[in-house]
Amino acid sequence: MQPQEINSFAGIESDVPAELVEALSAVELVDHHVHGTFTKHVSRAVFEETLNEASPSPTPDFMTMFDSQLGFAVRRWAAPQLGLPAFSSPDEYWQRRVQSSPIELDRLMLAGVNVRHWVVDTGFSSASISSPEALADASNATSSEIVRLESLAETVASLCTSPGEFIDAFRAALEEARTHAVGFKTIAAYRVGFDIDWLRPSDDIVTKAVGNWMGGSGSARTPLADPLIIVFLIHAAAELKMPIQFHVGYGDRDLDLHKSNPMLLLPLLRQVGLQDTPVMLLHCWPYHREAGYLAQAFTNVYFDVGLALNYVGAQSTQIVRESLEVAPFAKQLFSSDAFGLVELHCLGSVLWRRSMGLVLGSWVRQGDWSLEDAVRVIRLIGYENADRVYGLSR
Amino acid sequence: MQPQEINSFAGIESDVPAELVEALSAVELVDHHVHGTFTKHVSRAVFEETLNEASPSPTPDFMTMFDSQLGFAVRRWAAPQLGLPAFSSPDEYWQRRVQSSPIELDRLMLAGVNVRHWVVDTGFSSASISSPEALADASNATSSEIVRLESLAETVASLCTSPGEFIDAFRAALEEARTHAVGFKTIAAYRVGFDIDWLRPSDDIVTKAVGNWMGGSGSARTPLADPLIIVFLIHAAAELKMPIQFHVGYGDRDLDLHKSNPMLLLPLLRQVGLQDTPVMLLHCWPYHREAGYLAQAFTNVYFDVGLALNYVGAQSTQIVRESLEVAPFAKQLFSSDAFGLVELHCLGSVLWRRSMGLVLGSWVRQGDWSLEDAVRVIRLIGYENADRVYGLSR
Amino acid sequence: MQPQEINSFAGIESDVPAELVEALSAVELVDHHVHGTFTKHVSRAVFEETLNEASPSPTPDFMTMFDSQLGFAVRRWAAPQLGLPAFSSPDEYWQRRVQSSPIELDRLMLAGVNVRHWVVDTGFSSASISSPEALADASNATSSEIVRLESLAETVASLCTSPGEFIDAFRAALEEARTHAVGFKTIAAYRVGFDIDWLRPSDDIVTKAVGNWMGGSGSARTPLADPLIIVFLIHAAAELKMPIQFHVGYGDRDLDLHKSNPMLLLPLLRQVGLQDTPVMLLHCWPYHREAGYLAQAFTNVYFDVGLALNYVGAQSTQIVRESLEVAPFAKQLFSSDAFGLVELHCLGSVLWRRSMGLVLGSWVRQGDWSLEDAVRVIRLIGYENADRVYGLSR
Repeated sequence: MQPQEINSFAGIESDVPAELVEALSAVELVDHHVHGTFTKHVSRAVFEETLNEASPSPTPDFMTMFDSQLGFAVRRWAAPQLGLPAFSSPDEYWQRRVQSSPIELDRLMLAGVNVRHWVVDTGFSSASISSPEALADASNATSSEIVRLESLAETVASLCTSPGEFIDAFRAALEEARTHAVGFKTIAAYRVGFDIDWLRPSDDIVTKAVGNWMGGSGSARTPLADPLIIVFLIHAAAELKMPIQFHVGYGDRDLDLHKSNPMLLLPLLRQVGLQDTPVMLLHCWPYHREAGYLAQAFTNVYFDVGLALNYVGAQSTQIVRESLEVAPFAKQLFSSDAFGLVELHCLGSVLWRRSMGLVLGSWVRQGDWSLEDAVRVIRLIGYENADRVYGLSR
Repeated sequence: MQPQEINSFAGIESDVPAELVEALSAVELVDHHVHGTFTKHVSRAVFEETLNEASPSPTPDFMTMFDSQLGFAVRRWAAPQLGLPAFSSPDEYWQRRVQSSPIELDRLMLAGVNVRHWVVDTGFSSASISSPEALADASNATSSEIVRLESLAETVASLCTSPGEFIDAFRAALEEARTHAVGFKTIAAYRVGFDIDWLRPSDDIVTKAVGNWMGGSGSARTPLADPLIIVFLIHAAAELKMPIQFHVGYGDRDLDLHKSNPMLLLPLLRQVGLQDTPVMLLHCWPYHREAGYLAQAFTNVYFDVGLALNYVGAQSTQIVRESLEVAPFAKQLFSSDAFGLVELHCLGSVLWRRSMGLVLGSWVRQGDWSLEDAVRVIRLIGYENADRVYGLSR
Repeated sequence: MQPQEINSFAGIESDVPAELVEALSAVELVDHHVHGTFTKHVSRAVFEETLNEASPSPTPDFMTMFDSQLGFAVRRWAAPQLGLPAFSSPDEYWQRRVQSSPIELDRLMLAGVNVRHWVVDTGFSSASISSPEALADASNATSSEIVRLESLAETVASLCTSPGEFIDAFRAALEEARTHAVGFKTIAAYRVGFDIDWLRPSDDIVTKAVGNWMGGSGSARTPLADPLIIVFLIHAAAELKMPIQFHVGYGDRDLDLHKSNPMLLLPLLRQVGLQDTPVMLLHCWPYHREAGYLAQAFTNVYFDVGLALNYVGAQSTQIVRESLEVAPFAKQLFSSDAFGLVELHCLGSVLWRRSMGLVLGSWVRQGDWSLEDAVRVIRLIGYENADRVYGLSR
């Protein structure tokens, strides 16, 4: 079948001025934080689990994750991409989905997303998902890479023969990474939380901590979860002045959500050594107001609410509204944080365009914003800020 | 006078599709957390104080609690039930109210609530309010009971002759309670806050703590406020796999609101022993987003925003909206948490139906949700989830 | 040029009932927390920096603070006051602005604000901004003064020859201040945060702390940042039973935003000695729900969301909505917290009237509130609560 156009503004035509619809439809997005798509068929159980960001448990028998905002959004927006009526039942959706290969699913779902460039985090489950290049190919786009600091450190450590080698080896790995990546990412939120001492530890202390960590070896070695080492990684990366993405807020229950409140980053952000390094706060819900505040307070802080939009579906309008409070418009970016299910890559684009249409549309219709300004903000958040921060050439 | 029908959708007919109005009007609710109604006339001072959830102080002379969202909602929705025009003045309302006996007030206010079943917390001020049976009789409904763990423990302790008897006696009391109750409730939020050690203490430690607590006796004994004992109560109750309700968030100023943030329950929820015990987060405002997150993250976590809807009145639409973000729709329940004033039992039903109509109506009209899905979610939250979790037979 | 009328309801006429427009246009506000206007021309750099509440850094080259909600609001509402079309470009705006003297700017911007009385905080940068009297003169209004406790203490300390004099001298200064001021303000949020011991320290302890602080002298002395001393100041001021304003939430990055959560004031508010002293929580975003809760929970607590409205511009509607949840309507006040730029004094009035129109208008149109009640709430928040709490005579 041929890919379908997506009209992200269906049903809200009277709420969004035609010029805004036009601008939002035309804008070629930069998705500044995304992952690849599953390269193999997944089971329905995995599909449903992937619709649940927060729980690692199987979906219990008494319910289906299709009965959620994201599940409804999949049936609303992704079903027609497979040739089904909107709101087809979960069973109908699933029966149709399994008939297409992963490559075909990518083709059908990505055709209408109008993403120009993907900035891909390759640090998680990269064996089961498509590469940045493959994602780009499937969507007639380009891509670049984000290197995850904790993964890089774990690789480096596995190659060190003594703790004393770690610091130099990690710095060398950063230098190598900068040759092919446009930035870094830290999942300190998952590994240690933000309620830690953010001062750069001395090399001696780092080396000692690495020694403790490297006590186990090979598969016996635990994932990196020592705040001393993670703080070192971040400071070391910051010296390169390339953007560092921070997972903030919404994520799976491994993290203490309240300890990923971005306010806890204040002691880090206030350090002089960070001030020329773009700090990209990802996701941020339910702390997106706090993230917006930091984006106003610090010249080098940026944020997005990408992941949240997909998971709150129809409620994305309110989240977008709340993301447009105190942060200057030069400091917010678009992302989907889509992982695995190509429906998420599709929805990220649809829900952002639709929510921006409703929010900015209401302000334009009421005369709070001019149409020209609204269009300009769409471009800033849609791609200009990302182009500038990551140094993407068009 | 004859009870009046209540049209919960007056004034918003053009905003809510007729089929949704029909479904929301028809749905026979299960109110999964509620208290009885006052069995005797109360003074106007007590009436006003009951309109204030957070303050135990008398209403100061310079103001009236009628000048609040809840006060406006009482005049809007409850006044017509007494045969008065909507928005009658506080004095007119009061003069009319005192002319009806408590039983007559119940009859007039409960006639239109369309609640099929009340799950009643009998642990607070039960001497002055109606029993579950009386509440059911007055509303042509059925009822069941929730046993409050702290009250049960205080009763058990008063019958123990030595601390060493407490643990077994409390377990026996739990077993007895399960014969007539459908679940338990804890007010740990009030007594100790959630920022405590949630690991089950050893029996020896519990017994020692009970000894300290029982040092005072009879009326001299202080209310149970030892975290070691309260954590024991919760773990002991959890072993029965019956639902445990947790007071979360909004309540009177005795509690440290920020220490009732449900995120602080993470160390409890992560314990294996809890995973088959339904944990019901009650009220939750202003932490309802966090509660919804936990309902996604943990298979056994549920939540409601009941109490908040009454107290925010016309703002309940936004709270309902925010309660429909990341939580699967199988994980939210309806409640009113009405206490004493039968107006609250009435408003709980009206404001939920009205807010759900506005919120789901906007999504249906814009094509984000299908009508059929909206109706299904109404039934899930309105009664199906409660029926399933509490094992209510229809 | 002649001052222009401002129609705060342009573009939303169909959303706000005419009677509400009339009431909101007519209401003569009391701005209970404001500063003076710049008495000299400022550079464009300073202008942009003042559009940024949170960052003390220069606006970076890649952006302009005009690209923010506040920047858009300036171009929307303030440009016509200078005879420019709404949404004139930043450059056009600036070129026109520099042609008027500060006095002329005041005249043009303040003409339509319809503020009856300004309650002016004179404790910050008072050398560069207009006095309460000058602000009143420029706006055909009256004014009164708020004395900042930390500034007063710093002045007192500079005049003490030994630490032992401080307590009595500070009390004398408070007594003197009450002869010309209507209340006090504390910036404990900036200096020490709210996560401190709020019990009144003994005189001995205070004196010792003053000794440590006074170790430096003259310009070498650091600004007062000792929690023991600041807690003393607040308790000493509270004994006078005059209103004490607390900076809460949104402010520049010097403060730990999360440590200005008003919930952390609970240990102070629960003290008997405070209960007859009005506690005014200022700004409060993003903790305005918490502030509203405290205003319900404590007879003597009041709050506003003034500063936030200006900085979130078109999003002020949602903030106003959220400020009308659990707080009784006798407990919220209007303010602008405008500082320096007279545009902020103007916008404070415009955005509050407009947002209140949209929010209350929607409730009136839907029949949740009566028109009469809405008008009454406008007057309560607009001036009546302030008149009562500060003892302002009309």
